[in-house]
Formats: sequence, C-alpha cells, structure tokens
Amino acid sequence: MNTKAFEKLNYTLSLLSAANGDKHHGCIINSLHQVTASYPAKFTVTVNKDHETYQAIKASGSFSVTLLAADCPEGLIDCFGYRSGRVKDKFAEYAVKTDGMGNPYLMEHMVARISCKVVDSLDIGSYMLLVGEVTESEVLGDGPVLTLQEFTNRGKTTPPAATVYRTMAGNGFRCTVCGYIYEGESLPADYVCPICRAPASKFVKQD
Amino acid sequence: MNTKAFEKLNYTLSLLSAANGDKHHGCIINSLHQVTASYPAKFTVTVNKDHETYQAIKASGSFSVTLLAADCPEGLIDCFGYRSGRVKDKFAEYAVKTDGMGNPYLMEHMVARISCKVVDSLDIGSYMLLVGEVTESEVLGDGPVLTLQEFTNRGKTTPPAATVYRTMAGNGFRCTVCGYIYEGESLPADYVCPICRAPASKFVKQD
Repeated sequence: MNTKAFEKLNYTLSLLSAANGDKHHGCIINSLHQVTASYPAKFTVTVNKDHETYQAIKASGSFSVTLLAADCPEGLIDCFGYRSGRVKDKFAEYAVKTDGMGNPYLMEHMVARISCKVVDSLDIGSYMLLVGEVTESEVLGDGPVLTLQEFTNRGKTTPPAATVYRTMAGNGFRCTVCGYIYEGESLPADYVCPICRAPASKFVKQD
Repeated sequence: MNTKAFEKLNYTLSLLSAANGDKHHGCIINSLHQVTASYPAKFTVTVNKDHETYQAIKASGSFSVTLLAADCPEGLIDCFGYRSGRVKDKFAEYAVKTDGMGNPYLMEHMVARISCKVVDSLDIGSYMLLVGEVTESEVLGDGPVLTLQEFTNRGKTTPPAATVYRTMAGNGFRCTVCGYIYEGESLPADYVCPICRAPASKFVKQD
C-alpha cells in the first residue's frame, strides 16, 4: 500500500459551521460532497466527533457550508482551520450572517453557500459521516474555489479538520481533536495541546 | 434556493470499476472521497443503484478506483462515461489489470489507484453510498488529476454517473439509469434509451 496515492485526489476547501445554543462554531474542511444527482439534492460532510463543530451540528441538526474563494486570505483559514472553538470564538472578528436554521456563515471571500438539514448519519470511526438535504443555497462570488491542492502547493499544511490521511516522518503523537502533532518519543502525562487544550489522553501515537 | 451554488464545487474525476463474475464493469464518477483522517483509511463512493457497476460492486463486495490524469483522452472518458455496461464491454479495447480482489482497472492515463473492500453502506435514494476500507493503493503517474471543472470548461457535459445535480432548460425526460435526456413534451410508451437501452419506465420527468 502506498498512501501517497491518497494525496493525488483534489478537493474543494470550505467552511463548515453550526450554532450550539448562542455559540457559533466552524472549521475548515475538504469533506463537502454532493452525493446524489437526483432530487432532493443531498450532500455529505464528515467531521471529527471530538470537534466542537460536530457537537454544534448534533445539537442543531443542521449546518451551513460556504465554499472558500481561491483568493481567501490566510488569516481566515488560520482562524478557522487551526484553532479550536474550545479556546476561541472564531467568528468574533468577522461579519456573521445566519441562515434560516440559525447557523452562522460568512459572505466575504466565499463563492457559494449551501445550508443543509441532517437527514442521516453513519459512524465511520473517529469521524461521523452526515447526510444533509439542502434547505438553502446561494452563489456568493464569481471566481473559482480554493482547492486543497492549490492551498498545499503554497507550502501550507492541511487544516486539521480536513479528512486527509496524514503521515509524518519519525515518531510523534497526534491530537485527535485538532490534528496538532507533538514531535517526540514520549508524551508527558500532563501535556496539554497548545492549539485546542485537549489533554494528553486525546493524543494517539503516530505509526 | 439557487442550484448554481452546487456547480461551484470542484471534484476529481475517476474510473470506478468492479467485476460481476467474469464480466467487468466501470463508469466515470466524481464521487470518490476520503472520509476519515484516521487509520484505517476510509473512502466513500456513491453509485446509482440502476448502474451495472453498482450491481458488480454488490456482487463482489469491493471496488477499484483509478484517478484520471489531466491529459486523459476523450475516447476513454466517452467509453466509460457515456455508455452502459448492458450493451458494451467497456474494457474490451483496453489493457486491463486486476487487483487482488478481482476488480479490473487501467494503468494508462491514470494518476493513482485505490482498491477498497466495502465495509458499510447507506441508502440515500436513487444512489447508494458505500464506505470502503483501502486494501491496496498505488501511484500510477506524476501529473495532476482531471477535475470536473477542467473537464466541463472544455465544453464537455458531466458524465451521467457523476453525482452532480443537473438542471435542464425546457421540458424533457431523464433516463435514471444513464442520465440521457430525452427532449420533448411527452415520452412514447415504447421508447428505449439510445445509450443504455433502458425502457420508458426508467425515465423521469425533469422539473
């Protein structure tokens, strides 16, 4: 098996978001896909069960996804792609709109928005696969979307919430919540993730 | 709702194939996606339940997917994307290899191959969503993959098996097996699809 084969696939990057009560959560994903050509239109997303965004989707039964424009600024991707909603209100610095189901979304630097009601789900391990039926959709921009390949071509690492198999050279431990890699032979028992503050128990050894 | 929003997403095009006894089936899809970042690697594909390729996957419990190279010739895409396995042995003109589970695949004009064992499935209407665990994977080429947006930018129509919402201007009937559109106000009762030979009962009115 050569896992380099997995990296050949190209994906659209988007911002997945949902509300948990009055709190807004969101993360950068590559896992929005239309899954049927028939009516009603259905999309799937997969989300790490430990992510705050998943908890929000579970609470609200719905989500919003906005497709990132190719010229989306790095600051926005850093904010939503590499920080945890446990320690930061990611939407605080942005002009937030909400869809008919109360999910937050952004208009700027986005190409399109698709809001879905969750109609089915499948447990696939550490990730949950959610089937959504579209309730609202709109075009927000003219330009092309940002793909994962264009993003990584710029020397960027894959956002932790993206469902892309990651391999690393050498030993280390990966935070199952946000994807942060601790490089070292052993992980201190009182270690706390510098990105999302998850405890050492949430880290798994990389093979 | 503006379904133009759905067309903004970009996807990798690939050849999905499986064996049904000694018969080889395959079609061009945009629905292969990695769905978990954790081990073991899992991918989903969605396939129209009426397609011969789905019947083959159901029979064998496994499938092979090869990612199309950006320079993949039109003849290959025409053969696998717009013909039905009911009326044509699509693999007849190509040098076919088979993976460890007996699924056929092609090496030329392909970037990577991923073979999967089906471990779960979800009925999402006219399409079936299949969860596959990778059993074999290899890199077959250096270049970039062909994306749906690059393909349609060349003036091509979306291959019928692609899970992309299609809308049409005016009245007509769509073959639910292969996606062919019959343009007209009413469909003759003895009509047979010119692409896949499905009967009139397999056509649905387009809204």
